[in-house]
Amino acid sequence: MSLVGNCVVAQSGGPTSVINASLCGVIQEAIKAGEITGVYGSRSGILGIINDNLVDLAKESAEEIEFLRNTPSSILGSCRYKLKAPGDGEDYDKILNTFKKHNIRYFFYIGGNDSMDTADKLNKFINSSGHEIRIIGVPKTIDNDLYGTDHCPGFGSAAKYIATSMSEIYKDATVYPSDQITIIEIMGRNAGWLTAASAIPALIGQGPDLIYVPEVPFHYDSFKEHVSQIQKQKGDVIICASEGIKDVNGIYVAQNETLAGHDSFGHAQLGGVGNALRSMVSNLGKKIRVVELSLLQRCGAHVASAVDVEEAYQVGATAVRLAISGKSGFMVTINRDSQEPYKSSFGTIPLSEVANKENKIPREWINDEGHGIKQPVFDYILPLIKGKNAYKEDEFGLPRCAKLKMIPVK
Amino acid sequence: MSLVGNCVVAQSGGPTSVINASLCGVIQEAIKAGEITGVYGSRSGILGIINDNLVDLAKESAEEIEFLRNTPSSILGSCRYKLKAPGDGEDYDKILNTFKKHNIRYFFYIGGNDSMDTADKLNKFINSSGHEIRIIGVPKTIDNDLYGTDHCPGFGSAAKYIATSMSEIYKDATVYPSDQITIIEIMGRNAGWLTAASAIPALIGQGPDLIYVPEVPFHYDSFKEHVSQIQKQKGDVIICASEGIKDVNGIYVAQNETLAGHDSFGHAQLGGVGNALRSMVSNLGKKIRVVELSLLQRCGAHVASAVDVEEAYQVGATAVRLAISGKSGFMVTINRDSQEPYKSSFGTIPLSEVANKENKIPREWINDEGHGIKQPVFDYILPLIKGKNAYKEDEFGLPRCAKLKMIPVK
Repeated sequence: MSLVGNCVVAQSGGPTSVINASLCGVIQEAIKAGEITGVYGSRSGILGIINDNLVDLAKESAEEIEFLRNTPSSILGSCRYKLKAPGDGEDYDKILNTFKKHNIRYFFYIGGNDSMDTADKLNKFINSSGHEIRIIGVPKTIDNDLYGTDHCPGFGSAAKYIATSMSEIYKDATVYPSDQITIIEIMGRNAGWLTAASAIPALIGQGPDLIYVPEVPFHYDSFKEHVSQIQKQKGDVIICASEGIKDVNGIYVAQNETLAGHDSFGHAQLGGVGNALRSMVSNLGKKIRVVELSLLQRCGAHVASAVDVEEAYQVGATAVRLAISGKSGFMVTINRDSQEPYKSSFGTIPLSEVANKENKIPREWINDEGHGIKQPVFDYILPLIKGKNAYKEDEFGLPRCAKLKMIPVK
Repeated sequence: MSLVGNCVVAQSGGPTSVINASLCGVIQEAIKAGEITGVYGSRSGILGIINDNLVDLAKESAEEIEFLRNTPSSILGSCRYKLKAPGDGEDYDKILNTFKKHNIRYFFYIGGNDSMDTADKLNKFINSSGHEIRIIGVPKTIDNDLYGTDHCPGFGSAAKYIATSMSEIYKDATVYPSDQITIIEIMGRNAGWLTAASAIPALIGQGPDLIYVPEVPFHYDSFKEHVSQIQKQKGDVIICASEGIKDVNGIYVAQNETLAGHDSFGHAQLGGVGNALRSMVSNLGKKIRVVELSLLQRCGAHVASAVDVEEAYQVGATAVRLAISGKSGFMVTINRDSQEPYKSSFGTIPLSEVANKENKIPREWINDEGHGIKQPVFDYILPLIKGKNAYKEDEFGLPRCAKLKMIPVK
């Protein structure tokens, strides 16, 4: 069972506040492991392996590695590269060459849905080629749409950023006696978990009035009616909407306003749902503000969730232990063992079962009208956003983040 | 000199992260003062005095008053109401009635430029009417454009939010090997202090490439040239721009894209400079993201500056002490007594000297090309953003903010 050699770790897809905490877990556990002789990082996700662009992470100082726990975005760089099928181009041959050249026997891929698909294909191809390697996926996504895990590292911190910002925006947006409509646009292409997190401040009376998620078709007419009703009742109206909401015909609401491009996975690149909604209620004649949380919600590590950071670290460390124990072709999962007090543990799911499935909010957790969420969503999210992640400030008043030397592997 | 009676405090203009810290300073100092018999708050700025809508702040719990230090936005409500001239309508008579009815002998107005103008007019009118009252202005603005004070409470926390967010956006926006243009739109109508704060992360190599502030005319052609040059040199380009930048003809750049409305002070309501800049470089054909910091930058109290919170508290407390000592018609100012270590003290300036003047970035602190800032701006901002303001979390993982009962004064 013992497999001795080097390991490589890569980060892929959109950045999160805690993807580097998972990297920290991988590095620290790999350095401890006797079977793993060298700990390498791949620059820009899978591209670093294709192009033989690796760095030696064991040459970084232990102190800087520790700072990865509080460093947002993907410090090794990321990519949105879709691996071609084996036989289509040279991708697989190049990857095999890199693995052989550097005696890579362990590969840890931190990423989301598409990355797990890549890891699954690689696992099948490389092992059938005769070069023994163990491949473990480390889950990461702010969207929380990864299948097979109770929740996903990255979500808790983004949810905490959104809930905190919502509570602050509420206080700002209701300060004038002027009946303002405030529309907040939140990330989430197919799953509404992040937008649902904006409801948390409702527990202190400072939540949005209307919440729209992609799980339920959006009705233009009832939207306008609801806004108008709330305006008459309360004056100020606050609306939170996922970028990916679609109308009953399956057309993105954002496409009413903007022509969406497509990324290399064929996903529509969304944006502008806030402005689309604004134009729908502009006839109500009051002041309307659109707030797009944009990149800030996925990299706002200064308000990361302590629970999320710790779990992100542990999924990284668990991936290494699983590989050393002989596993390959699995993604690490998080189990919710207890709700109160919250406790979690870590399990596995075959990569092939993860790829191309999505974890969405159950319909029964959304209200009948499709403009609000119900108690189970609060119960689900609350334990994941608790606790302030302690971070140090640098001499300039900024969060002290990891500084890596990034020494190339020759 | 002793003047015994009630005091009223009001908050006006745009919210900040620390305007309630100033309120906390006023309340706690007023409760201590023997001359002040009742401590009232005016709802929605000056409107609460015009309409006799006061609350009894002495009936709030001491613990909740203390939480005001960490509560963003204006908890008493705000307004953007422009007081008419004496004799034009009933505003002044109504104010005088409220002051007489409740034996108000002290008025503390927390606000920006327009509020100091209001306080100045009121001071002259009411005292000439025979009702003795002492009026002190408490400075507040995220824009830092208030004249007569080294800097203004509210600026440090907004600057810290912007610098922190910039350091996080930098890590996110440079993560792909795809040469992205990222444009960050920051508040600031006539003064570029907030946008200048985005340069702080340059001290850790993570600042914007180009910074545009309203103090220098914006040149369309050189903007496009600079972006193109940086793209060739570095790949990714990050641009920070004030909402209020104007071209050489004095036309707002944002008006290239959007038709601006006007608020009740006749100020153009800006927005959309990010999209205007985007359209100017769209021919460069790379991925372009626009991030508008929007409301978040003025209410992001979870990342408030400890220095700013303390100074905001002290200007409130100082206002009360000044009034009790017999002063009226002044605004509290902050003096920078020492840069290293940073030390400040508090002084005064006549309200009439504050109103309708603006504190802008000196031209010599901006580079010759008008697309970056120089060392003195770093020296000026750095001490104001240092230190994390400690706040408690509530049971839902959100910042624990003040909850006031708001008991009306009959």
